[in-house]
Amino acid sequence: MTKIYRLDPNRVKENNPLEILAEIIEPELKLVNQIILKETENRVSLIPKLASHIISSGGKRLRPMLTIATAKLCQYAGDRHIKLAACVEFIHTATLLHDDVVDSSILRRGVETANTVWGNESSVLVGDYLFSRAFQLMVSDGSLEVLKLLSDTSAIIAQGEVHQLLTKNNLETSEDTYLDVVGAKTAALFSAACKVGGIVADRKIADQDSLESYGKNLGIAFQLIDDALDYSASSSKLGKSIGDDFKEGKITIPVILAYRRGNTEERSFWQKTLVRCKQDKGDFDNAINLMTKHNSLRDTIRRAKHYGDKAKDALAIFPNDLTKEILINLVDYCIKRSN
Amino acid sequence: MTKIYRLDPNRVKENNPLEILAEIIEPELKLVNQIILKETENRVSLIPKLASHIISSGGKRLRPMLTIATAKLCQYAGDRHIKLAACVEFIHTATLLHDDVVDSSILRRGVETANTVWGNESSVLVGDYLFSRAFQLMVSDGSLEVLKLLSDTSAIIAQGEVHQLLTKNNLETSEDTYLDVVGAKTAALFSAACKVGGIVADRKIADQDSLESYGKNLGIAFQLIDDALDYSASSSKLGKSIGDDFKEGKITIPVILAYRRGNTEERSFWQKTLVRCKQDKGDFDNAINLMTKHNSLRDTIRRAKHYGDKAKDALAIFPNDLTKEILINLVDYCIKRSN
Repeated sequence: MTKIYRLDPNRVKENNPLEILAEIIEPELKLVNQIILKETENRVSLIPKLASHIISSGGKRLRPMLTIATAKLCQYAGDRHIKLAACVEFIHTATLLHDDVVDSSILRRGVETANTVWGNESSVLVGDYLFSRAFQLMVSDGSLEVLKLLSDTSAIIAQGEVHQLLTKNNLETSEDTYLDVVGAKTAALFSAACKVGGIVADRKIADQDSLESYGKNLGIAFQLIDDALDYSASSSKLGKSIGDDFKEGKITIPVILAYRRGNTEERSFWQKTLVRCKQDKGDFDNAINLMTKHNSLRDTIRRAKHYGDKAKDALAIFPNDLTKEILINLVDYCIKRSN
Repeated sequence: MTKIYRLDPNRVKENNPLEILAEIIEPELKLVNQIILKETENRVSLIPKLASHIISSGGKRLRPMLTIATAKLCQYAGDRHIKLAACVEFIHTATLLHDDVVDSSILRRGVETANTVWGNESSVLVGDYLFSRAFQLMVSDGSLEVLKLLSDTSAIIAQGEVHQLLTKNNLETSEDTYLDVVGAKTAALFSAACKVGGIVADRKIADQDSLESYGKNLGIAFQLIDDALDYSASSSKLGKSIGDDFKEGKITIPVILAYRRGNTEERSFWQKTLVRCKQDKGDFDNAINLMTKHNSLRDTIRRAKHYGDKAKDALAIFPNDLTKEILINLVDYCIKRSN
C-alpha cells in the first residue's frame, strides 16, 4: 500500500471522516444548503414546509458531500459542483419521500415522516416537485452530459425500487438479485454523485470511471450495512429504529443468508413471518437468533467489506492527498457503523 | 373573421376533429406509439405491464397529438417532434398514475386504475420511472430549450397538484385560485405540448408564444368542461363516471359558483358534504339541483368558452390550412363534450 497523507490529529474529531469532510468543505456545503433552501421556496407553502421537514431532519448530506469531495479530489476550481450537489440531494430527497409512502414508514431518523405528518398524497406530490426541481437545476447548469447521467440514474433508481417491491415477501430472491436491487436503488446515486465531481473537473474518462466505481461500491457497502443494522441491537445507539425491514417483509442479505443456511423448521419460520406476514411476539428476537446461529449478520458485513475494498482500490489512481484519505476513511466509517 | 380552409366532407367522420387529426397524422402517431412501447420495455416486468395498462387504456393521446399537429402547422419537416410527443405523453402518464394514488381512484375511463390492480406502491414507483424516462428521451433529443420548457412544466404541474390538494374540502377557495390550479395541473402541459411544435420548427418567439397560448387556453377550457362533466348526467354516455369530484370533496368551478350564489341553508349543505365530508343518499342529486338552480354548470361552460375563444384567436396569426382548421375545431369539440 502506498503511504497516504496523514490527517493533522488536531483536526480529527472522534476520528469521524464525515465530520472532518464537513469541516473541510464547509463553505461549499453552506452554498448547497442555500440553494436547497432557495429552490424549495414556493407560494404554495406546503411545499417549502414539507421539503424542509425532510431535508433538514438530520440527514447527513452524504451524497452532495461526495460530489463536492470528488470535485475537490480532481482539483476542480469552478462552482458548478455546488448546484449539481444540490440536484443530487433533491433526487435523493424525492426518492426518500416516495420510499416512505411505499413502505408506509412512520419514523425516519427518529422523527415522524412527512407522510405521517401531511399524508401520503402530499409526500407523493412534493416528491414529484423536488424531482422536477432537480431537473430544472441541471438544465440551468446546461451540461447534456450531466443531464444524461442523472436522468439515467433516476430511471435506474425507480427501476430498482419497483424491482425491490417485487422481491418483498419473496424468499426465493437470490443474493445476486438483491444485489441488483441495491445497485439500482442505492448505489446508482452514490455512483452518479461521485462521477459528477469528475465531469465538472473535465477529467479523462478513466478517472470518471474510477470515481463512478468508488461511489457504486461505497453505495453497495453502505446499503448492506444498513440492512445489517436493521437487525442489530446496537442500532438504537445510532438513533436508528430496528426491525422495520422484518416488519415489512423485506428480503435483504441477512435474511437471504439465514433462510438459505437454515433447516426445514427454520425456513418455515421465515415463510410464516416474511411471506405470510404472521408475526408474533418474540419472532423478531428469534430472527436475530437464527441470524446469529448462521453468522448471517457477520457475513453481510463481510460482503460489505468486499465492496468497500473495491471502493478504496478504485481511488488508487488518484494522487494521495487529504481528500483521498478522507474518502478512503469514509468507506471504513460506513462499514464500522455496524459495530 | 378570415375565411378558413374547409375540410373535405368525405374526410369528416362524425365531425370529430380528434378522429380527423388522428387520421391525418396516423404515421407520426404510430411512431410515437412505437417509442412508447420500446421505452417502457424493462426486464422488471411489472414496469411494462403497468405502463401499458395505463398508456393503452383508452387514452386519447391528446397531448402528443397537439405536439404533432402544431409541428405540422409550422411546416416542420424533421422527426424530433415524434420523440418529444412521446416525452409529453410519458409526463402525462406519470402524473395520471400519481393522481390516481392521491385521489384513491378505483376506475379511470371505466377500467380499473393501476393502483387498484397493482397497489399504490407500484403506481408511485412506475410513475417515477416513466417520469425519468421522459427526461432521458429529452436528453437524447439534446435541446436545452426543450429540456428547460419541460422541466419547468413538470415543476409547475407538481406545484399545481400540491396546490389542488390544499383547496380540497376548502369552500373558501376562490374562482381565481382554482384557475391557478387548473393553469398549473392541466393547462401547463397542453401549453408545453403545443410550444414544442413551434420550437422544433425553429419558429420565431411570437409564433411559439401563440402556440403556447393556444395550448394553455385549450387546457383550461378542457379542464373546466371536465369539471362540469363530473356533475352532468350526460357523462355516463361518454363512458365517464360522475360524482367523483363530489365524493372527494374537490372544489371546482361548478361548486365554487353554486356555493357563492347559494343562501345560508344551501351553504350549510355544501359545508356538510364537502368540508365535513358527510354525504348521505340523495346529496349528490341535491348538489346537481343546486347547480341547476344557480346555473353553475351553464356558467362553467360559459367560462370554458371564454378560454376556448382565446385559444382560437391565438392561432389567428398562422396561415389558414387544414391543420389550423382542425386545431380550431378541436376547441369547440372539447367544449361540446359537455352537451
